[in-house]
Amino acid sequence: MSLLVIGTVAFDAIETPFGKTDKIVGGAATFISLAASHFVNKTNVVSVVGGDFPQDAMDMLKAHRVDLEGLEIKPDEKTFFWAGKYHNDMNTRDTLETQLNVLETFNPKVPANYQDCDFLMLGNLAPSIQKQVINNLHHRPKLIVMDTMNFWMDIAMRELKSTISMVDVLSINDEEARQLSGEYSLVKAAKKIIAMGPKYLVIKKGEHGALLFDKDNVFFAPALPLEEVFDPTGAGDTFAGGFIGYLAETKDISFENMKRAIIYGSALASFCVEKFGTERMQNLTNEEVEKRVKEFITLVQFDISIVEA
Amino acid sequence: MSLLVIGTVAFDAIETPFGKTDKIVGGAATFISLAASHFVNKTNVVSVVGGDFPQDAMDMLKAHRVDLEGLEIKPDEKTFFWAGKYHNDMNTRDTLETQLNVLETFNPKVPANYQDCDFLMLGNLAPSIQKQVINNLHHRPKLIVMDTMNFWMDIAMRELKSTISMVDVLSINDEEARQLSGEYSLVKAAKKIIAMGPKYLVIKKGEHGALLFDKDNVFFAPALPLEEVFDPTGAGDTFAGGFIGYLAETKDISFENMKRAIIYGSALASFCVEKFGTERMQNLTNEEVEKRVKEFITLVQFDISIVEA
Repeated sequence: MSLLVIGTVAFDAIETPFGKTDKIVGGAATFISLAASHFVNKTNVVSVVGGDFPQDAMDMLKAHRVDLEGLEIKPDEKTFFWAGKYHNDMNTRDTLETQLNVLETFNPKVPANYQDCDFLMLGNLAPSIQKQVINNLHHRPKLIVMDTMNFWMDIAMRELKSTISMVDVLSINDEEARQLSGEYSLVKAAKKIIAMGPKYLVIKKGEHGALLFDKDNVFFAPALPLEEVFDPTGAGDTFAGGFIGYLAETKDISFENMKRAIIYGSALASFCVEKFGTERMQNLTNEEVEKRVKEFITLVQFDISIVEA
Repeated sequence: MSLLVIGTVAFDAIETPFGKTDKIVGGAATFISLAASHFVNKTNVVSVVGGDFPQDAMDMLKAHRVDLEGLEIKPDEKTFFWAGKYHNDMNTRDTLETQLNVLETFNPKVPANYQDCDFLMLGNLAPSIQKQVINNLHHRPKLIVMDTMNFWMDIAMRELKSTISMVDVLSINDEEARQLSGEYSLVKAAKKIIAMGPKYLVIKKGEHGALLFDKDNVFFAPALPLEEVFDPTGAGDTFAGGFIGYLAETKDISFENMKRAIIYGSALASFCVEKFGTERMQNLTNEEVEKRVKEFITLVQFDISIVEA
């Protein structure tokens, strides 16, 4: 089953209490594709970069079986750039600089070779662009997963809700779920958001884990308690990439299988934060992933037998 | 196995976004005993109240098989009183008033009938008073569980650490674990705190669940996602009471059984917040508890088979 990812391919400059980087390769589509590569044989990417984007970064992605036919290169322009600084708690950050560059005029085109898309991951981008990709596909994918952020709720709520109504799974964090729904209780928020269209809602709570809702069920996946969070950049995208990659590999979009996909996504995200940017994800083995998934199983496993009255 | 609880028996005045109460019955020992009553046949309480404490509250506790021989009544003094107001997020609160009253001169005495204590729950109180109770027992209980709070870390850290070194299980929240250890990472904090003496550490994260650590293992219990949190007062004490009550009933203090105890404690706490004060806990059936424990099982259950290489 073919996986198509749309999202940014970018430069990040990151400052954490542990150190800082110059411009390094980042972006939602980058993290999503690297995570998905643990499950699928090929990830098709639609994105845009400038002439300043390095060949070795593209080679690195190709080495992870990421197809870049859909990566538009604008030779005379610059790649999207974000600079941010994390606070001491690593849960909050300030944006120091955002240069949209090539993103300002991004007009995503889906190559003919990508039209067999069965699984579509819409990484965080303007909701109008996300929608354009759905509309550019000749047939509707089996599953559309959408990530977004509070920024679009602030400036483009109507367009955002319109795009949300077209997807199967929405993935946002707890504060965004509250903002989108106007409900503080995440249970109430989930009900309202599912009424907006998506059959499934994933609420990411960072170090507190993630919740999966459908109309009738809720599943909670913990985050692994970590000694050290070195750089949270890309953790949410890595989670999403692991989630949709697992679903695309297993070809099963039941609630039960989405639970497994969330555990795999959480496991991958727990690696992502161990080093700056994509560094850890570039050199992650399947054995390491399986070992960590086992730690998740151990973490939440308990044995209570309830005797039916 | 005999369970002994020490802690406050008090009046609370509570204000939440949903309403406010006049003085109602509260206190750590009250919530702990009501929760433990779902598991043990008798809970012995050491505490102190004033002449203003109502007989019907004592009758209510006795109806839940709480033994009040150790409840000292000072007829000419007033019961400990706390007034607080919760913020809109229900996770933070302001103390509006604290009247120590009878607590100012509290000198806990353990009746001879309570000396068979095998399980000791030290509810939040001055660490010197908690220690005095341990020292008043002729033999060391099989298990000592201690609750405390940041207030004692601010004003009595040395005494607190001395008492902590004498107990088996310390139960605190995430911010308190960070303050006590000086570590932001809860994994690192747990290592430092376990090095202070307790074999087990429970870190309560409110709506984000709870972690159980020993030297080598970690277990994560979620909190049930709730539509409505009406009044969080007493939730931590209810959790602790369910935890030690379950252990006292099952007479098994292994890590595996503590995991079950945490699930039962979490289930009881999820009821406590549904109404003001002790109201929900006074009329809670075992069937309701078992039904909710099943919801916890469903909430975190997933099925991944890892094939060993």
